Amino acid sequence: MTSIDLNSDVGESFGRWTLGDDAAMFSSVSSANVACGFHAGDPSVIRRTCRNAAEAGVVIGAHVGYRDLAGFGRRFLDISPSELADDVVYQIGALQALAAAEGTKVQYVKPHGGLYNAIVSHTDQARAVVDAVKSVDPGLPIMGLPGSEVLRLAEEAGLRAVTEAFADRAYNPDGTLVSRTQPGAVLHDPAEVAEHVLRMATEQSVRTIDGSILKIRAESICVHGDSPGAVAMATAVKSALADAGISIGAFA
Amino acid sequence: MTSIDLNSDVGESFGRWTLGDDAAMFSSVSSANVACGFHAGDPSVIRRTCRNAAEAGVVIGAHVGYRDLAGFGRRFLDISPSELADDVVYQIGALQALAAAEGTKVQYVKPHGGLYNAIVSHTDQARAVVDAVKSVDPGLPIMGLPGSEVLRLAEEAGLRAVTEAFADRAYNPDGTLVSRTQPGAVLHDPAEVAEHVLRMATEQSVRTIDGSILKIRAESICVHGDSPGAVAMATAVKSALADAGISIGAFA
Amino acid sequence: MTSIDLNSDVGESFGRWTLGDDAAMFSSVSSANVACGFHAGDPSVIRRTCRNAAEAGVVIGAHVGYRDLAGFGRRFLDISPSELADDVVYQIGALQALAAAEGTKVQYVKPHGGLYNAIVSHTDQARAVVDAVKSVDPGLPIMGLPGSEVLRLAEEAGLRAVTEAFADRAYNPDGTLVSRTQPGAVLHDPAEVAEHVLRMATEQSVRTIDGSILKIRAESICVHGDSPGAVAMATAVKSALADAGISIGAFA
Amino acid sequence: MTSIDLNSDVGESFGRWTLGDDAAMFSSVSSANVACGFHAGDPSVIRRTCRNAAEAGVVIGAHVGYRDLAGFGRRFLDISPSELADDVVYQIGALQALAAAEGTKVQYVKPHGGLYNAIVSHTDQARAVVDAVKSVDPGLPIMGLPGSEVLRLAEEAGLRAVTEAFADRAYNPDGTLVSRTQPGAVLHDPAEVAEHVLRMATEQSVRTIDGSILKIRAESICVHGDSPGAVAMATAVKSALADAGISIGAFA
Repeated sequence: MTSIDLNSDVGESFGRWTLGDDAAMFSSVSSANVACGFHAGDPSVIRRTCRNAAEAGVVIGAHVGYRDLAGFGRRFLDISPSELADDVVYQIGALQALAAAEGTKVQYVKPHGGLYNAIVSHTDQARAVVDAVKSVDPGLPIMGLPGSEVLRLAEEAGLRAVTEAFADRAYNPDGTLVSRTQPGAVLHDPAEVAEHVLRMATEQSVRTIDGSILKIRAESICVHGDSPGAVAMATAVKSALADAGISIGAFA
Repeated sequence: MTSIDLNSDVGESFGRWTLGDDAAMFSSVSSANVACGFHAGDPSVIRRTCRNAAEAGVVIGAHVGYRDLAGFGRRFLDISPSELADDVVYQIGALQALAAAEGTKVQYVKPHGGLYNAIVSHTDQARAVVDAVKSVDPGLPIMGLPGSEVLRLAEEAGLRAVTEAFADRAYNPDGTLVSRTQPGAVLHDPAEVAEHVLRMATEQSVRTIDGSILKIRAESICVHGDSPGAVAMATAVKSALADAGISIGAFA
Repeated sequence: MTSIDLNSDVGESFGRWTLGDDAAMFSSVSSANVACGFHAGDPSVIRRTCRNAAEAGVVIGAHVGYRDLAGFGRRFLDISPSELADDVVYQIGALQALAAAEGTKVQYVKPHGGLYNAIVSHTDQARAVVDAVKSVDPGLPIMGLPGSEVLRLAEEAGLRAVTEAFADRAYNPDGTLVSRTQPGAVLHDPAEVAEHVLRMATEQSVRTIDGSILKIRAESICVHGDSPGAVAMATAVKSALADAGISIGAFA
Repeated sequence: MTSIDLNSDVGESFGRWTLGDDAAMFSSVSSANVACGFHAGDPSVIRRTCRNAAEAGVVIGAHVGYRDLAGFGRRFLDISPSELADDVVYQIGALQALAAAEGTKVQYVKPHGGLYNAIVSHTDQARAVVDAVKSVDPGLPIMGLPGSEVLRLAEEAGLRAVTEAFADRAYNPDGTLVSRTQPGAVLHDPAEVAEHVLRMATEQSVRTIDGSILKIRAESICVHGDSPGAVAMATAVKSALADAGISIGAFA
């Protein structure tokens, strides 16, 4: 393996409010999950994000979420599957048009926040997302957690399912993420994050929170862009990969 | 002339709230202006509207508006041209995806309410709408008021500009609409509306509020769908046109 | 018992969209649950509703809900208790100011839709609602389902807990409501609804879906205002109560 | 004169998005204009802001705005006066309840952004704001630009009208603010801002953009909190006033 995809959330500003350092992330990642307006991202933010991604040669994906600006899409919403599917189609279409206006295009879909977490196990909402993506374009891959319902259903429906791992999250021995409510759940040291990623990229494995080594399948590695120190982490990851002779390249 | 386009606003429900009798309008008009979510229409309403339009053989257009659910997009908003353009691209793209999911497509753009009125004379906002439509698809016509800035700029930009007249609105002798604040501004009698439309379709003219006859150029006639008696009017118009041997057919 | 409180949801219009026949309900009920803007009701709707309630001599309560206009507050939202409490305080305060501007005041709180259902059993959200109401005014009663967490916690906190029954809903033998997904869950026949209410008011009991008689404690009976036939039902209930010599009067 | 009021906008964060350094501003100003949720500020942000203001001994005012999160309330909205009045009452009431829950109270109203600018000259919207404030509490002062319609109408209605000047804005010789589109409109140098404020506080005058000295009447001086360098400016102002023996104290 000589290449790995790094993805990050971008375009999460809204109106007067700025979030994250997208410019810095664009110089570090190969795939950018662009907020589509339901949890973050207004049309002007989205368009500017598409333009900047295109200029940086970064592939864009639709970061679709629940309609919940006040909660940033992080709160589970018990929406009906058919309404969720329509919300997802709407968001992808809106992003497609803005991307096209900037000479680029949407190449994958990655659900956001509360929706991302829900469709690890919520079969009806997972199926709604898959149905929505398929109805827009059966050639669009869906990115998600290895072993999740959404990826299982995506493959069942003939869509490409792209697995991802998290650069700054600790893993339990069973491959799930350590809950954010537990100590050690989030890695903050850039060197530690870089080592975590390197192991993912070179050995397809992670050292879990109890020290054991676990095989994981990850076609992309998520680098968070909105946390303090996000840029330092992304830089450390990029540099460690370069030292190891691994290039960063989009999966798509 | 043996054919005229009738257009109507549809898909203006939102969540729990229903507005208009879209099913009835679909049996009377050839073009449907579908709300895109900023002033009315949630994704599920939009999708269902596209499906019903497709089944009825009615052409759909993007009824783009200001982001103002509380005001139904009827209040002028002093938005910057670049933000407006991005809002318009976003709305068209969202509708395109939902339309495609139902096997149909967006064939024109008609701005709504406060935006429609603003771009009769507001050059910067008019240009923003034209830029937005052109950036999505230079083949998309824009529908508007004869003599408006938006249609002038659309033609200048190489877009098709489609003029429309209003079935239930009285005209001033100079071709502008009688303000809704004036008595007689809105016609309520189905027979009177039918006669108004017939004159538009057969003679390309209207009888103005002072009784004079004025030539107007209208490639489409707008039949309102959300007023009391809307269905009765549409039925009267349809029947009067049929009696006169004029068929109803989309301009697009 | 010579008097019973009837309550109904009102003020659920929003902007261009009208819902329910509030005027008719005001002539039938003694307490009105006024939407506060998060799931329905814009400030002008709220103010007009307060004015009409005051003129009709109907007591008003705050019908607080999740921030979810698109879902009409009917979808469970996994909001944190502290955010929920703040949302509830905000809504009550907004309604209080509009009520005061119309010479009336908020005399109780009844959560709406998804929130109402959640706090039957969701202890953390129930406590958040109780905390919010108490922080606004410890003299404000909370209306809810008999046996619910929210009423238990309200009493624990020293608030008045007001139980309600539903005029048009069938009951299971254990006192829970028959799920709307089951046949017979909702009563549509005005005569049947009137009999249901009469039994509640005179015998403090209901005939359950299996025909058995169940004692229930209800200080108020909810008459829905937004369903087809709502007005006919309310009229039938009012008339049946009058015939039985029972007056309609606010619990507050 | 030995005391002057300094006011600043606070509570302009929303959900995941943070704006301004409120803690720093609370240590520098005597009055805080708290966003009420329509242009910025969610209920939890508002409540926290009220708590922090109370702890810092800072008086709070309602910073009411147009319902326009995407535009941060900066864009003129052609809302009807009656709807605007209701929106203002709603916002004040919501803030009152959250303030009361934190043991403090709303002591004045200062319109925000596009609304602030509109009611300098837009008589109908200005009257709507005055009517709204009066209907909530005739004892609530309104803060605005000297010579504005809103202050004229406030006084006419028997409300206290509080004039303010801007610490970091250049003035035209006629007392209006230099438009932000002009060079030199905004002062960035803390020393210059401090001198500007000192002159306002000690001489009730400003040096205008052409160098002339103009008398202005200002009971409060606005220090912006969301611009780069805001904290440095506030600190410089505070220190300059202290050196001149002028204390900072709320007008209210």
